[in-house]
Amino acid sequence: MPTLSIADAQALVAQTLMRCRTSETNARIVAHELVAAEADGLKGHGLSRAPTYAAQAKVGKVDGMATPHVETRRAGALLVDAAHGFAYPAIAAAAAALPDMARQCGVAAAAIRRSHHCGVAGHPVERLAAAGFVALMFANTPAAIAPWGGSRGLFGTNPIAFACPLPDAPPIVVDLSLSKVARGNILMAQQKGEPIPTGWALDSAGRETTDARAALAGTMVPFGDAKGTVLALMVELLAAGLTGANFASEASSFLDAQGPPPGTGQLLIVLDASAWGADAITRFGALAQMIGQEANARLPGVRRLENRAKAARDGLAVSEALIAECAKL
Amino acid sequence: MPTLSIADAQALVAQTLMRCRTSETNARIVAHELVAAEADGLKGHGLSRAPTYAAQAKVGKVDGMATPHVETRRAGALLVDAAHGFAYPAIAAAAAALPDMARQCGVAAAAIRRSHHCGVAGHPVERLAAAGFVALMFANTPAAIAPWGGSRGLFGTNPIAFACPLPDAPPIVVDLSLSKVARGNILMAQQKGEPIPTGWALDSAGRETTDARAALAGTMVPFGDAKGTVLALMVELLAAGLTGANFASEASSFLDAQGPPPGTGQLLIVLDASAWGADAITRFGALAQMIGQEANARLPGVRRLENRAKAARDGLAVSEALIAECAKL
Repeated sequence: MPTLSIADAQALVAQTLMRCRTSETNARIVAHELVAAEADGLKGHGLSRAPTYAAQAKVGKVDGMATPHVETRRAGALLVDAAHGFAYPAIAAAAAALPDMARQCGVAAAAIRRSHHCGVAGHPVERLAAAGFVALMFANTPAAIAPWGGSRGLFGTNPIAFACPLPDAPPIVVDLSLSKVARGNILMAQQKGEPIPTGWALDSAGRETTDARAALAGTMVPFGDAKGTVLALMVELLAAGLTGANFASEASSFLDAQGPPPGTGQLLIVLDASAWGADAITRFGALAQMIGQEANARLPGVRRLENRAKAARDGLAVSEALIAECAKL
Repeated sequence: MPTLSIADAQALVAQTLMRCRTSETNARIVAHELVAAEADGLKGHGLSRAPTYAAQAKVGKVDGMATPHVETRRAGALLVDAAHGFAYPAIAAAAAALPDMARQCGVAAAAIRRSHHCGVAGHPVERLAAAGFVALMFANTPAAIAPWGGSRGLFGTNPIAFACPLPDAPPIVVDLSLSKVARGNILMAQQKGEPIPTGWALDSAGRETTDARAALAGTMVPFGDAKGTVLALMVELLAAGLTGANFASEASSFLDAQGPPPGTGQLLIVLDASAWGADAITRFGALAQMIGQEANARLPGVRRLENRAKAARDGLAVSEALIAECAKL
């Protein structure tokens, strides 16, 4: 498999997008984010998305030329219309404006609507935490999870992300997709003709299934079962209800070039760690240290940092098939 | 079992507390909350707490005479020092001040420190939602959950609560304790000499156990296992790290009258549903309606409302043992 440097991988993605009705600004931002996901080992949000994104931009399912429209609605309330463009420029616009608002108000929130696939939800909050803020992001995604007891996918896999700064270390990053396993695991089982474990997914009638094909036609089981379903509802209400975005069941797929734009939403909340006067960052460090003292435990996100360092050093292995697919577009 | 009206149950609790170095104001607030929990069928946070609270007030583990000290730190940042009193008056003070701040800023947050058992985390957010706001609460509790792979209880069962208004119905309320099951279930198994199912708890060495006694000496498993543990970490960082409260492992028990005050914390975030301009409440209603159309699904919190209506109509069954215990204090 060819190995590309981070810069070459970014160029590959950006050039592919620019050939598919995407502005250079947007193409660079998207390329940066897909490569960052790939470098962190989060391949589901990485380079494999490039051909789909490009195909969507080509037909206008995502508007590659869009500029997010940012409006300050209250001292701590930002509204970002992603204008059916990529989510990344909209999230970046929110993340650029929120720190000053959070310094003034203590807390500030951006509602992002008419948006798209948010990618690695942990990345924007991680960067805000690296700048000294505590950040939370809730994002909704197309239909994946049914209300507990139901069969229709009314909620997405709806990630929750959180990050806070540490005194002398990279931020603590929490990034949780709410399905028990990623849908990719079921796709893989189907391709191999293998059954899936009970508890991963439901068929289209809402019954437990071990049949990968039936699972793909049905819904994903959230982690924590009934309790996780309630979290998925909460994220749907915050990321789509409050923001004015499409709910999961109204959103078209992130994974093909058919249909109207997904129009999903994100809610980004930023808190100034110093607003409440306690030495919060020192205290975050104290808890991190207690966890570090546990023999077999570690902070979430550590593996990402290891992967990231390795990718910066050794570059990224990129399949010839993907390079060819990008070239074809 | 004797049946008390809501008012008589409140009087029983308030009078018990007032005999145990608690001010009338605080006693009334606490009584209201314990009875509200009992009425909702949430007995773990209900009348059974009254004797423990009173015993703690008697020895000063909770300061029944305390008045929460409220300080506006930024336009959207409120600091509440619960002053080692009950959590309820501190949370009530926060909930009283936040709506105006949220109207102004779009979002506002109260950090509550030197606090105590928050009771039903869903209640304060439900009331804020009934007034038209979207609210989130994160609370930490004494040591219960270990970091994934570890054995020491560094996180509490740390509830997450959320509520949002609906157009013509009571708010949607999410209220999730992060342990897979309540500790009470393990206590009950121990009393009956029965084993507990695998996956509920770990022993003090961090190994899975079916022995109730070993489980009580160990830690609780969170819902969603590894992912749930990460949520517990997030809540610990928000509710204690950011607020300047004690972490779970630093907090004394809510359940006995030994040791110093628990000093736990709560973070309450209030968002003005109208700040982002979308008709958020109508959209919340649209999702609620979709869930209502699913044959076997229902919104979380519905059983609470049914119990509440029944209690208002029929009163509360209160054991003679509890009444006697209150009388003794």
